[in-house]
Parts: sequence; structure tokens; C-alpha cells
Amino acid sequence: MLLHDCTWAEVAAYLSTGKGIIMPIGSTEQHGPNGLVGTDAICAEAVAHAVGDAVGAMVGPTIPVGMAVHHMEFPGSMTLRPSTLLALIHDYVLSLAEHGFERFFFVNGHGGNIATVRAAFYEIHAENRARHGKDAPELRFALANWWEGDAVGRLSREFYPGVEGSHATPSEVALTQHVRPHAIKAVAMSPAVAPAGGFHDARDFRRRYPDGRIGSNPALARPEHGKRLLEASAAAIAEQYRSFVTES
Amino acid sequence: MLLHDCTWAEVAAYLSTGKGIIMPIGSTEQHGPNGLVGTDAICAEAVAHAVGDAVGAMVGPTIPVGMAVHHMEFPGSMTLRPSTLLALIHDYVLSLAEHGFERFFFVNGHGGNIATVRAAFYEIHAENRARHGKDAPELRFALANWWEGDAVGRLSREFYPGVEGSHATPSEVALTQHVRPHAIKAVAMSPAVAPAGGFHDARDFRRRYPDGRIGSNPALARPEHGKRLLEASAAAIAEQYRSFVTES
Amino acid sequence: MLLHDCTWAEVAAYLSTGKGIIMPIGSTEQHGPNGLVGTDAICAEAVAHAVGDAVGAMVGPTIPVGMAVHHMEFPGSMTLRPSTLLALIHDYVLSLAEHGFERFFFVNGHGGNIATVRAAFYEIHAENRARHGKDAPELRFALANWWEGDAVGRLSREFYPGVEGSHATPSEVALTQHVRPHAIKAVAMSPAVAPAGGFHDARDFRRRYPDGRIGSNPALARPEHGKRLLEASAAAIAEQYRSFVTES
Amino acid sequence: MLLHDCTWAEVAAYLSTGKGIIMPIGSTEQHGPNGLVGTDAICAEAVAHAVGDAVGAMVGPTIPVGMAVHHMEFPGSMTLRPSTLLALIHDYVLSLAEHGFERFFFVNGHGGNIATVRAAFYEIHAENRARHGKDAPELRFALANWWEGDAVGRLSREFYPGVEGSHATPSEVALTQHVRPHAIKAVAMSPAVAPAGGFHDARDFRRRYPDGRIGSNPALARPEHGKRLLEASAAAIAEQYRSFVTES
Amino acid sequence: MLLHDCTWAEVAAYLSTGKGIIMPIGSTEQHGPNGLVGTDAICAEAVAHAVGDAVGAMVGPTIPVGMAVHHMEFPGSMTLRPSTLLALIHDYVLSLAEHGFERFFFVNGHGGNIATVRAAFYEIHAENRARHGKDAPELRFALANWWEGDAVGRLSREFYPGVEGSHATPSEVALTQHVRPHAIKAVAMSPAVAPAGGFHDARDFRRRYPDGRIGSNPALARPEHGKRLLEASAAAIAEQYRSFVTES
Amino acid sequence: MLLHDCTWAEVAAYLSTGKGIIMPIGSTEQHGPNGLVGTDAICAEAVAHAVGDAVGAMVGPTIPVGMAVHHMEFPGSMTLRPSTLLALIHDYVLSLAEHGFERFFFVNGHGGNIATVRAAFYEIHAENRARHGKDAPELRFALANWWEGDAVGRLSREFYPGVEGSHATPSEVALTQHVRPHAIKAVAMSPAVAPAGGFHDARDFRRRYPDGRIGSNPALARPEHGKRLLEASAAAIAEQYRSFVTES
Repeated sequence: MLLHDCTWAEVAAYLSTGKGIIMPIGSTEQHGPNGLVGTDAICAEAVAHAVGDAVGAMVGPTIPVGMAVHHMEFPGSMTLRPSTLLALIHDYVLSLAEHGFERFFFVNGHGGNIATVRAAFYEIHAENRARHGKDAPELRFALANWWEGDAVGRLSREFYPGVEGSHATPSEVALTQHVRPHAIKAVAMSPAVAPAGGFHDARDFRRRYPDGRIGSNPALARPEHGKRLLEASAAAIAEQYRSFVTES
Repeated sequence: MLLHDCTWAEVAAYLSTGKGIIMPIGSTEQHGPNGLVGTDAICAEAVAHAVGDAVGAMVGPTIPVGMAVHHMEFPGSMTLRPSTLLALIHDYVLSLAEHGFERFFFVNGHGGNIATVRAAFYEIHAENRARHGKDAPELRFALANWWEGDAVGRLSREFYPGVEGSHATPSEVALTQHVRPHAIKAVAMSPAVAPAGGFHDARDFRRRYPDGRIGSNPALARPEHGKRLLEASAAAIAEQYRSFVTES
Repeated sequence: MLLHDCTWAEVAAYLSTGKGIIMPIGSTEQHGPNGLVGTDAICAEAVAHAVGDAVGAMVGPTIPVGMAVHHMEFPGSMTLRPSTLLALIHDYVLSLAEHGFERFFFVNGHGGNIATVRAAFYEIHAENRARHGKDAPELRFALANWWEGDAVGRLSREFYPGVEGSHATPSEVALTQHVRPHAIKAVAMSPAVAPAGGFHDARDFRRRYPDGRIGSNPALARPEHGKRLLEASAAAIAEQYRSFVTES
Repeated sequence: MLLHDCTWAEVAAYLSTGKGIIMPIGSTEQHGPNGLVGTDAICAEAVAHAVGDAVGAMVGPTIPVGMAVHHMEFPGSMTLRPSTLLALIHDYVLSLAEHGFERFFFVNGHGGNIATVRAAFYEIHAENRARHGKDAPELRFALANWWEGDAVGRLSREFYPGVEGSHATPSEVALTQHVRPHAIKAVAMSPAVAPAGGFHDARDFRRRYPDGRIGSNPALARPEHGKRLLEASAAAIAEQYRSFVTES
Repeated sequence: MLLHDCTWAEVAAYLSTGKGIIMPIGSTEQHGPNGLVGTDAICAEAVAHAVGDAVGAMVGPTIPVGMAVHHMEFPGSMTLRPSTLLALIHDYVLSLAEHGFERFFFVNGHGGNIATVRAAFYEIHAENRARHGKDAPELRFALANWWEGDAVGRLSREFYPGVEGSHATPSEVALTQHVRPHAIKAVAMSPAVAPAGGFHDARDFRRRYPDGRIGSNPALARPEHGKRLLEASAAAIAEQYRSFVTES
Repeated sequence: MLLHDCTWAEVAAYLSTGKGIIMPIGSTEQHGPNGLVGTDAICAEAVAHAVGDAVGAMVGPTIPVGMAVHHMEFPGSMTLRPSTLLALIHDYVLSLAEHGFERFFFVNGHGGNIATVRAAFYEIHAENRARHGKDAPELRFALANWWEGDAVGRLSREFYPGVEGSHATPSEVALTQHVRPHAIKAVAMSPAVAPAGGFHDARDFRRRYPDGRIGSNPALARPEHGKRLLEASAAAIAEQYRSFVTES
């Protein structure tokens, strides 16, 4: 059930039966030679929608642009400053809390978002206390990264042994190939496997990883892999969501 | 050309030929008995993508949640505070400006966004001057509301004479029916035509317009109307975009 | 009745009879060769005071500096960033609301303020909800631009046919000549009528309109015109104010 | 020379001869039984204009609303939060600095503003360094309270021996009586001299000083006193201004 | 009693007997040739702890970095922007107020903090009103500068006649020598007594006072002086604290 | 080498040989029946100072109050909102960067800080780009939690097998006992081992863990354990620091 596809009366009806909502958050940033700028938003949205279908939960609008300061040396990358993303999540959640939503389950597509999203949860807790005192609704938050979990890891190791890497990975490229087949790109890459490692700021990132990949060989991505990765991720996260909304 | 569907190298190639980008901005808010909560985002995105196709321009990620404080008495409505939306647009634009984009054409789906979006343009101009002084890139902004323009008005008067209204209009409902036919809702409404008028805050809105419509009869909406409205809007806005990016 | 000229006990007495207040907002920015930097504040204040006299309403302090980023290439221009003006209006209104004022009628002297002022109304609505919940006072806002309205338009066309223009207009210069006759300037202008059009940022403005005027011939301004424009504007806006404070 | 009464070309001419500007800042707050809500703004403006006349300096627009949180239990009082006033002064000064103003002399009418104004000077210094680095213009600030200085003190002791008090003083009431004779109020007060002392927050203020005065007998105020106080203050501050703009 | 050295149950027990807390605030900035960068934090903390011992009051964590924009041309100086310090004090105080603390007594080590700390008190009063309305707890604030008071002045004149100066003073250096004897520095200074005067921004400060001292001869500082200064300051401030927490 | 114990000339000398600085960050929050409110700040500071000694690095002032919204139901707990902590770290780092520090190594004492500290690193990277463009200094950040690392884990398992828990742990209590032996508390606890698990907001935390501990038995803490934990942590982090400042 997509919030965007409901009427307000349907939302009201949903709220009479549950307080949970799934919130997809992605990023808009370079993803190497054959990865789409929208990769992280596309993946988070696809998984979140699949989870929503599986568990019958409401899914909110996807946050398409996240915290990607470190990708800003590559054209097309967009970023919110962490302070802006903090304010955005604050407003999203407190809007929905006015209607009675109480359990917010973020499905995340981008590692760079994690710190700010977690910080936002506490910014909201603080505001909720300040605003409502002892009468504050009890808001709860969870964050699930779609690429984590045992089943996804097993598939990745099966499809791309040793070359999953940590940015512009074949898994995320495959997932977008499945969801957006019209946008599959055939791009030669050299070397086949990008150098691995860490990075500091945006200039350091570009210097170390000139085509944007870290440790990966996304040329191996296939849409049929993406389908299976999506299913595995959604199944695992659906379990987490069920626990989250039912725990006392 | 969707930014989300491009690689960073494709964005770089695009920038070598032009500096313009189309930015869709919608809202997530109640749209009456049969209108979707996502109506404004769906409409803005559909028109923006059609314009992008028509003119060969890059289209950025849709801003799905806008300024809808006045709809907050209806479940499912979400809003950014104006100050948050100001910060968000600031970050979107200045991210893209780092890569060389200079002309930002917003396609808007929600009247409530207009003031804040226009204010944001000047917040950015101020920051651009502060940051870069005499070396500041010359950024330009335009804002087009998809529902304006002669051709759209003619169709609206033809399809819904006297009952277009000003919120939860049959035109916008029709456009979403065309784009998202799986989410067409059959809902009885009474009275057939909602009361017309203005409003003040969210409680005043709900008191005056208990089912969320203002002056409209969206039961008349049909997906085939939506198709023609979309084409008419996109054609008109494509003209505006061409002028915007070519004027000196 | 000027708030500045009242004692607090007089304000308390006023509040026992009404909840409305008139808030003048101007700008401090270049107004062409013979227009004063304070034109917009002077005009807004003069009209607001006349309206206050006509309807017996309280008039708050004039906001002298508004949003004028686009005039910053001309010496003497001052601007608040939109985010600062948002905060200022927020604080003005919520201060007055603590005392019981509920209907805020802004008389505006500057087109550049409109977007931010309107955005501020919703920033306040959001804060009012956050702060007070269901017990929030019902605040209402209106914005009237002194130069709009049929009567003012008729006079402008009579006095300055075809050369009113859109910045540093003869009407606003005339109004300041009436109010501040000691500051009438005799300045030669060439061409007599400035080029008309739009503009983007401050540098673009200065390049297109090197003496600061847009489409106008303010050399035609006369203080006696200003007197009549002031009267016409105040009469029209007084009507609007009466409706605003009496509507249910 | 009032900035508001100049054309931009006159401002440009002024800047070719000097870099100083006088900035009046007042407050809008209760001033006891016979004092005007606008007292502090009226006094600051009158003194600032007189100083400007005396020294031939440019005078900027008066800031009419300052930091008066502690007066908020009395109707008509308005306040900016300190953070908003910080932002406002930041924007005023940095606007003027873009044109070449470098020495900013604030004439203050309200003790409650002092801390925030001084804090603002350093907020601006910090931003000036951040924005311009080694090329930052050298901005300088001064703050003069109109009621300080030996000559003003002598007059106060002569006119109101022992009953000047510290809020709603006869001196400030007298000054407003001189400047705005149409707004002289005849109000009985009891006791003749208000209790003296300190205060904490707004409720504490009202509890201790129920009519708003602290330690004063403003019934003794006379417009002719106000004339002499104004002259004495302006003469003293004019000297300070001259030193400020000429010191190396 | 140091908050840091208590368990939460001990804090709860303390709150059942009193509502006062001492808050040390210092700065991290150059203090001339032989003064420590931490001088102001060390002094404020030492005095605050001694006061806390004397009066049996709780002492909160020392704020080590204050507002020192004007020292930023000297290596090692750190500063919060005034707006950041405002937010920090806001959060400190409102955290403690949640537990029932109501009287906040700041012991300050740095003149540059005074304005911002005082502004913060009113930012908090405003937020306290906004958040709690008529039910707001009655928060009270005091600020004591350790170097003020008759007894400290007498010692300073006895130890350093005419050469106390106004920055990097022998008194504050002596106090740090007493508290941190391992960090006593032997540094030759020339001239023996630094030039006296005022300053504007950071560059102006460094130009006028190239070694960081203003009007002082800190070579005269001795740890035994510091011991007596600390005792004198703590005794005087302990008196102030007792009055502050007992006044009605 | 403590920044607080250096003169500015000593800081300048240090900067001629290295660009690294260690930044301790703690928290002020309940730590169960026998843990100090200052536990996290005490631990972070002790480890940071020991690392500084081991590697000869400069150590900045400890941030004593962090992000502890979830502890606010226990008296004595203090918190910065995440947005305030973001601003504080921004100001700390950019102050030091003005002097030439480029590598910032945070030693952290509190899990609740991690998200906000990491977000702050990117807020700073964004501001550094905005402020300096291509000339931006290359700032690098690292964050080490003192309680992580193999050696510390081994000791914890040796001293407190199965009862380390995740808040108010015996390890952190022991470390504070070693550093502040005067503040060792003897408090009976029941049950001996606190319940383990997660938590949501502050009320949820208090409900689940009424005495503040999670999964731990801090009654086992001994100062001699603390000594060994401190040494183990400092040794491990010293290695990390050396790599951090030498990597290219």
C-alpha cells in the first residue's frame, strides 16, 4: 500500500488497524561506469515496496536525495547537508505522527545516510519531548539497509565472488537492471575490478577511485540477479518489519 | 533524460552541451474523496518527464513532499516547514551547480509550494553571492505550474465546465488516473460539487471543506482526460523551457 | 492607532474590542535615479497608517528591510535572506499572538517580499500547531500590496500612461514625494523611459537596467499624484481590512 | 543624511568619501503607565538622526523591534528571539558591507538589546572570516546607549532627582514627548515612584512591577526635558562617532 | 559536588533539597607568551569547583570552548560562533531543567562570553514560554566573572600594581599556575608590559598586540598568587551564589 | 600534549611538525547505580590523554556533553540535540583548521554520539567545499570508541565474563574508578545482572531498565581493572592514530 496511491480516507482506515509505516530513503550520486545516479533511491524504493506488499504495510514517499557529500566530485551527484537531511526527516516523521503513525521503519539504499538518519531519530525524540512532555506519543524507529542480511550476502557471493566491493557494487547495479531494464548500460571498465579501500572527502574519493567504483566489478551485474537479490532482501526485511511493529 | 537513469559519465556528457535541468516538485497531501495523497507529485513528475522527453533536457529527482501545512488535518498529509523546504531546494540546486548546471526549471504540482520555492530562489542567489563573490556562476530559475496555461484551461473547461474548483480538481485527478490507472478510486461524493472559497489554517480548511475538495467535482475525472491534459501541459511547458534555456 | 504611540494599557483596551492588527512591510533598496532607497518602506507605512486611521485598527511597527537580494548590485540596497525574514515575521506575529492578536493584515510595499511573507504565514501555522496542538489560537493572515487595486491602477494610467513600468515606478516615487517632500530629487534620466522586462539575479538586474528603473519614467512623478494614489490605495485596502477582520 | 531619503547614486557618492554608518536600534515593549510601546525605537531613532545631522553621517533604517522577552507579560510588547536578532543584524551589516560600508555605529535605545547586539558583532566577524579569508574587509562596530554619558546623567539628576529608575524612566518618556507631542499621555500612577530592583523572566517582571515601571516616576516627564536630553545625548554620541570613524 | 562525579540517584537526592547548579564556562584561546590556551576554562572551573565546595552546590560540566572569534589569528585558539554557543547553553539548561534544576549560576572565565551567555538566557526564557506556556517552570540565571569583585581587585593591585592589563593578565596566569603547576612556562617577554587598548576583529587584535597580551605583565605571575586569587574569588562568588538560590 | 596546557607559540611550533589532533568526546548521562554521570567524558578524556602521551600528539579540549536524549528520564543526564552537536563539532574543527590542523582523531566515550559525530564530519566537508572551493584544505577525520578493540574485549571477558552488558558496563565504571578513585561508589544492585536488550526513546529506556544498567553487573568493577583497560585501550588507539596521521 503506497501512501501516494491512497486517498486520505484510506489512510485513515489503515490507521485504525496499525501505526507502522515504511519509509524508503535513497541517494542520488555517481555509481561508477554502468551504475545509475539514482541507484540507491531505486533500490531502496523497490525493496520497500516489496516489503510493503509482503506485510500489508503503508509505504511513504521515497526520499530520493540523501547525504552524499563524498561523491560531489562526480557530475550528477546531489547531496543534502546532514543538517538539512535532519530537518527533512524531522518534518516527514512529525507530519505522519500528527495522524497517529508511531512506528517508522526506514529502508535505506545508501551507507552514507546511516549516521544522519540515526541522528535524526534522536532529534525527533528530543522535539517530541519538548513539544508534548509527558503526553508525547511513543515514537519508534528502525533502519534496515537493503544490502545487509544473510540471504543477500549469500547471493552476492554466489554471483560475484570476491568482487562485490563497497561502492557501485554489482548487486545494486543488478537490482536497478531488474527494476529499470530500459536503463541498462553497457560500459567497458578497466581494470575489471576496481581498487578497494576507504576514503576521506570528495576529492580524496575521486583521486583514489577515478571511475567511481570501490572494489567492485559491476560489469557482472545481470537483471536476473537483481530480481533474486530484491526478493531475498524484501523477504528478510519483511521479517524485521513484522517484529518491529508487533514488539511491545 | 532522467538524472536517475544516467551514469555520471552521461551527465558529464550532457553538461558539455547544455546547462539546463528540469526539477519536478510535488506534494503529499489529501486530495479529496477520490484523489490520491500523491496527486501533486505524480502530476508534476509526469509533466516534467514529458517535457524532458520533448526537449531533450535532463530531469532531476522529484521532490515528493512540499509545503502543505494547511492540509494537516487530513490523514496522510505530509509537509515540510517552509524553512526546511528552503534548505532542501538550496542544497539540491547548489549540488547541481557544482557540476555546472546553471538553469533550473521547476515544474510544480502544488499551489502551496509556490511562495516557498520562489523564496528559495533568492536564498540561493544570496548564498551564491556570499560564497563566490564576483566569480559566482550566473544561476537562473523558473517555475511553471503544470495546471496553468491556455491549453490546459481550455481542456478543463471542456471536460468539467464550472466544476474544476481549486483543490482536488477533476483535472489533477484525471491526470493521476492516466498515469497510475491501477489506483483509480470509485468513491461517492456528496454534494457533487464541493463548496468553493478560501481558507486560513488547517483547521479552518477542514471545517470549510470536510471531504477535502474545494469547488470541484472530481467524480468527473477520466483517465483519457488525464492523457490529454498531460499532453497539453507538457507541450506548453516545453515551449517555456526552450525559451528559458536559450535566452541570453 | 499606532502600536508605537500606545501605552500597554491602551493596547490591552484595544484587544478587548478586536483582534486585528495591520503590519506594514517595506524594503530598503535602490529605486532608480530619483527614487529613494526607502521608497517601499515609506509607501507601505504611509498606506498602512492611513488604513489604520480609516478603520480604527492598530498598526504595528514597519518592517523597513525586506527581501531585496536582486537589488544588491546598487549601493544602499539592503536585504534580509528569505530565511531571516521568515524568522522575523515568525517572531513578530507570535509575540503579538501571545497578547491575543489573531488577525494579521500585512500592507506590503515591495513585490520581492511577497513569496517570503506568504511562506512565513505557513511557517507560523506550523509552529502554532506544534506549540499549542488542539488549543492553538486560530491565527489568520492577509497580504495586500499597496499598488494593486483598480483605483490605483486607474490613477497610474491617468498620470503615467504606458510608463508606469515595474520598478522605480512614477507612482511609488510620487507617493514618497507626497510623504517626504523634503526629499524630492531632481535627476535627469536617459532614456526617458527605462527598458522593460524581467531579470534573474542581482548582476543580471544591473546589466539590464543600469540606472535601476524597469519600464518606467519616474521623472513624471509629482507629490500631488502621490497624495491621490495614497488615498486611493488606503480606501481600497481599508475595505479589504474590514472584510478580513469581520469574516467568520 | 538618512539612507531612506537618498537615491542609490547619493549613497554611492557618500561611500566615495566615508565608510561609516549609524544604525539605530530600539525595541517595542511596554514602558509603564504613560510611556509608549515604541519608546526605545523612538528615542534611538531621534538621537541617531540628530547625530547624523551633527556629523554628516549616513543613518540606516531603525530596527524597531529588539530583544524584549522579559516584557512579554504586558500587552503590546514584541520581541525577537536573540537568535533572530543575531540573524537580522548579520544580514543588515553584511548587506551594507557589500557596498563598502566598514564602520557600523549602533545607537541603541534598549538595555535588553546590548548582549545580543554585541554577540552579533562577533557572529559577523566569524562569517566575514569564513566568507572572505585573508581578503575580508575590516569591519568595525561600536554601540552607544543614548541614555549613558555624563551630560545626560546630569540632566536626569537635575530633572528627576532620585526617581530616574531603570525602566520606563522619566528621561525616555520625556524624549518621546518631545519627538511625538501628539502622543503625550496623562495617566495617574500609584505609587508615585515604582519599586526598584532586578528581575528574572517575564512573569517575574510583571509580578514585581505590576504597572511596568522600575524605580521611576515618569509622571515628571516633560517634552522640554526631552528636548534637552536629546541634544545632550546627540552631542555626546556625535563625539564618539567622530572618534570611531577616524581612528586608525 | 560535581555532577560528573555523582550517580543519577545522588543527583535525584540533591534535587530533593535544592534547585541550584553552578555552571563553569571558559574559553580556549591564546593567552600571551606564558599563558595557557586553556586559561579561561581552567580558571572558571577551579573557581566554580571551589564555590561548589564552599556552598555545597552541584557543579555542572565545564564549557571549555567559548566565544573567541577575536583571538583566531593566534594558533590554538578555538571559538564557537555566538549562534552555536547560544544553542549549546540552551540545550545544557533545558536538559537540566527537565530534571527540576531551576537556578543556573554561571561562573565565567572569559569576557568574550558575556554577551552571548546573557543573550542565551533570553533565548531560553523565550523557548521556555513557547514550550510550556503558563506552566513553564520559573528558570533563573546569574553570571559571575571570577576576576571581578573587590577582594580579587585588591590582590591584583597588590601583586601587579598597574600591570594587570586586560588580556593574558598576571592574575589569570597565576591562577592557572596554582592549579596546573606542571604547566608553568618560563618565557621572556618584551616589552615587559604589553600595550594597552581596545581592538576590533581578530586581525586588528594581532596587529595591535603581537604577542597576545593587552596591557599586562604576566611574567610576574606566581602560583602562590594564584592560590590567593582563587580563594578570594571563590569566597566572593560563594556569597553571590547563596543570595541567588535563596532569594524569593 | 594538551592544547589547554600549551601556549599559542607552543601550538605554532607543534603545527610546524604535524597536522594531527586528538579530540576527546564524552557524554554526561546516567550510568546506573554506581556509575558516574560523567563516565563517558572521564573515560574518553583519560584514553585520549594517554594516547596523546604515547604518540606525542596534541589533544584538544574534551567535549563533556554529547547526544544522550535517550537517557533524559534519569536525573543528571544532559544532552545536546543532534543539530547542536553538529554545529559544535563544525565550529571546533573549523577553528582548528584555520590554524592548519588537518587530521582530526576523535576518541569517543559514548555510543550515542557516533551517528551525530559521523554526520558532523560530512557537514564539515560540505562547508569546507562551500567556503574554499578548489583551495579547500584536505581535512580528514577518524573516530575511535575507547571500548572497542581486541585487547579491551579480552580484558572485559576476563574480568566480567558474560556481564559486561551494553550500558553502565563494569569496564567503564572500572575505568572511572581508576581515574577518579575519590568517587568510587558502593551501591547495592538488584538483580545482580541487569536485563539486556534494546530500547527506543527515553521513557522506553527507563521502563525497561529502571536503574539505568543494560545487561551489566558493574558491581564487579575494580579500579585495578580500570587501569588495565585504560592501558589496553590507549595502546590500541595509539596504533590507529599513528596510521591515521601518516597515511597518504
